[in-house]
Amino acid sequence: MDLTVREQARRAQAAAPSLQQTSAESRKQLLLALGFALRQQQAEILAVNEEEVKEQAGQGLSPALLDRLKLNPERMASMVDGIEQIANAPDVLGETITSWQQPNGLHIRQVRVPLGVIGIIYEARPNVTVDAAALALKSGNAVLLRGSRMAAKTNARLVATITETLQEHGLPSDLVQMVQDTSRQSVKEMAQARGLIDLIVPRGGADLIRTVIEIATVPVLETGVGNCHLFIDASAPLDMAVALALNAKCSRPAVCNAIETILLHQNWAEQHFAQLARALEEAGVELRLCPRLAQYAPNHKLASEEDWATEYLDLIVAIKQVADVEEAIEHIQRYGTRHSEGIVSLDEKNVARFFAAVDAACLYHNASTRFSDGYALGLGAEIGISTQKLHARGPTGVIGLTTYKYLVDGAGHIR
Amino acid sequence: MDLTVREQARRAQAAAPSLQQTSAESRKQLLLALGFALRQQQAEILAVNEEEVKEQAGQGLSPALLDRLKLNPERMASMVDGIEQIANAPDVLGETITSWQQPNGLHIRQVRVPLGVIGIIYEARPNVTVDAAALALKSGNAVLLRGSRMAAKTNARLVATITETLQEHGLPSDLVQMVQDTSRQSVKEMAQARGLIDLIVPRGGADLIRTVIEIATVPVLETGVGNCHLFIDASAPLDMAVALALNAKCSRPAVCNAIETILLHQNWAEQHFAQLARALEEAGVELRLCPRLAQYAPNHKLASEEDWATEYLDLIVAIKQVADVEEAIEHIQRYGTRHSEGIVSLDEKNVARFFAAVDAACLYHNASTRFSDGYALGLGAEIGISTQKLHARGPTGVIGLTTYKYLVDGAGHIR
Repeated sequence: MDLTVREQARRAQAAAPSLQQTSAESRKQLLLALGFALRQQQAEILAVNEEEVKEQAGQGLSPALLDRLKLNPERMASMVDGIEQIANAPDVLGETITSWQQPNGLHIRQVRVPLGVIGIIYEARPNVTVDAAALALKSGNAVLLRGSRMAAKTNARLVATITETLQEHGLPSDLVQMVQDTSRQSVKEMAQARGLIDLIVPRGGADLIRTVIEIATVPVLETGVGNCHLFIDASAPLDMAVALALNAKCSRPAVCNAIETILLHQNWAEQHFAQLARALEEAGVELRLCPRLAQYAPNHKLASEEDWATEYLDLIVAIKQVADVEEAIEHIQRYGTRHSEGIVSLDEKNVARFFAAVDAACLYHNASTRFSDGYALGLGAEIGISTQKLHARGPTGVIGLTTYKYLVDGAGHIR
Repeated sequence: MDLTVREQARRAQAAAPSLQQTSAESRKQLLLALGFALRQQQAEILAVNEEEVKEQAGQGLSPALLDRLKLNPERMASMVDGIEQIANAPDVLGETITSWQQPNGLHIRQVRVPLGVIGIIYEARPNVTVDAAALALKSGNAVLLRGSRMAAKTNARLVATITETLQEHGLPSDLVQMVQDTSRQSVKEMAQARGLIDLIVPRGGADLIRTVIEIATVPVLETGVGNCHLFIDASAPLDMAVALALNAKCSRPAVCNAIETILLHQNWAEQHFAQLARALEEAGVELRLCPRLAQYAPNHKLASEEDWATEYLDLIVAIKQVADVEEAIEHIQRYGTRHSEGIVSLDEKNVARFFAAVDAACLYHNASTRFSDGYALGLGAEIGISTQKLHARGPTGVIGLTTYKYLVDGAGHIR
């Protein structure tokens, strides 16, 4: 019989201390062994995945979703690479973040510790199963994985390798569990398992994230929705601005750090809009223009109010002319999702103003918003890019899966 | 006509950037001026408060709640002292938490910024009005204050002084607002003002906090409920153990960092329980004992299952005999509220085990749990003692009211 979510969470909570007691070196060895095991068992894993992809294709899953579900040797290799990078990254558990002595002699240490039990709710991407488990184990946490029913067999096979590896290292298999109940109800049960689960991370579309936030009593790490902007200031060099716009829009349009709207300073637009438009068109991008820009280029669609608020995740871009950096900031504050925002400018004052006034996780000056990524910024593997302000902001990795406690030593101190 | 909560929150959000643009020195001067104004207007403020206390007494408010509502010159002085301490504390806004350069030349700074708009929901304690406003202003945040209807006049008078001071410093009065709607509905509206309010802090009893968490979609800072323990190990010196137990239980029984349960190692209990019990009784403490200890002292009440989970906030203590440090840890993990937990011991191994295994904000070795306080630990003024693991844990002050952003400088970097 299937276990309920709460029963599984209770087992995860009971198992967590055994991991917290391991050394940094043994957590590293555990993860390296996991990478090795996945490589060794690759043929079996791919066979299970192939069967599941066929089944789902027969049931009419769309080609885009089938592609997400599909594993192949390259994807397996990149999964194992990811684990090895996490294994070899510095360990943060137990580190003294800060320490001091009070005038009365009390000695205080602020020490980093795991959160406890993490819950991940995600879609049919088997690589998330392995990524999330590796990040959780590195940071000393037990993890409950609630994947998609469509990837259930592949996920179960991957988790079998993980739990086997755990057991070979003398650790309980309850540290990494797939949620057995894949009904919609199980999302609610996870989000409300207060006291059993310490953090819920929904990884998926805007709807999934909103649903989880609305029903959750467990704290949620909000990730991923990026309605990102590039503001091209009056002083922006033409070549740099076009290169940044193309890179931020086209290098991978379906990801959250791609831009959705370009804002053009009116002086720049007057001189260079035609060249920018041409470059974007040649790259296959559909343009949606504000009324003023549409006067120069009547062959393009007009942007509607909805366009400014849309994360296309596609080769479409909205473009708006603004009077100055202030109007750009206003627009971003109104429509942005606090993810990643860029300015191309040689005017230091405007850059400083943009950096001070725009409220987002990552702000870019003369650099592509596509750098919002744990590895690209040098922050290491990430569980997601946080668009919330509390706890963790921007690319969030092992440190976001930890908390701290104060350890106070006295000699009979009373107050 | 009264403004709705959402309208007030929108005004706060619009006002917030004006404060974020002030310098550390001007925020300091603003707070010093506020302290000065409160001192100058003390007579008028006390008159309004006296009238309100009389009114509430006439409507049957209990003496304990009347005492909380009441201001007097001493309490005003301590309020002003608090503001001055906050004014003179180091400013954390704009500080570069960390910075680095990537091999490709991208330069990255992680910079501390305000959260934006804070919502505080609290009971009939006028000092919270001033404390919370001062902490919010110091950390660059606008604040919506939702106080008790019973303190409405006193709060309005205090906020008048605050907004006057803001205006004299060229800042909008919308930075500090009392919620005009004091119906129960307004708590819900605040807790669900996602996108307008960045953090809700409920300051009050366990019921208020639970209600806010259950309905909130805005992130909540959970504070205050403390079912704290003192574990007296076999090696604990008698005098030190008794002094710590008395201090942690009796010095201020109604606060969250007072202990509610004492756990005694069986060997210590055998030798010293009688002396501990006598000392507690002489201090006027009612004892509730586990069955084993009750055999030695049949004149006391037996502790029920409910006692172990109760935050008495009164001169009552539950006492339980345990076999060893492991049983103590188990008990604390089961019944504790992750606030403050203490061990009295000379055995380094047991102390290390207790520090590693107990999951709480503050752990004490040979020191009273009563030190869990921003000032007592050297952390400065606090908005509350967080019992959650995310974002801020333990005594939480200005840093807990901030977040960060990553500022990335490039030279046309694309990915």
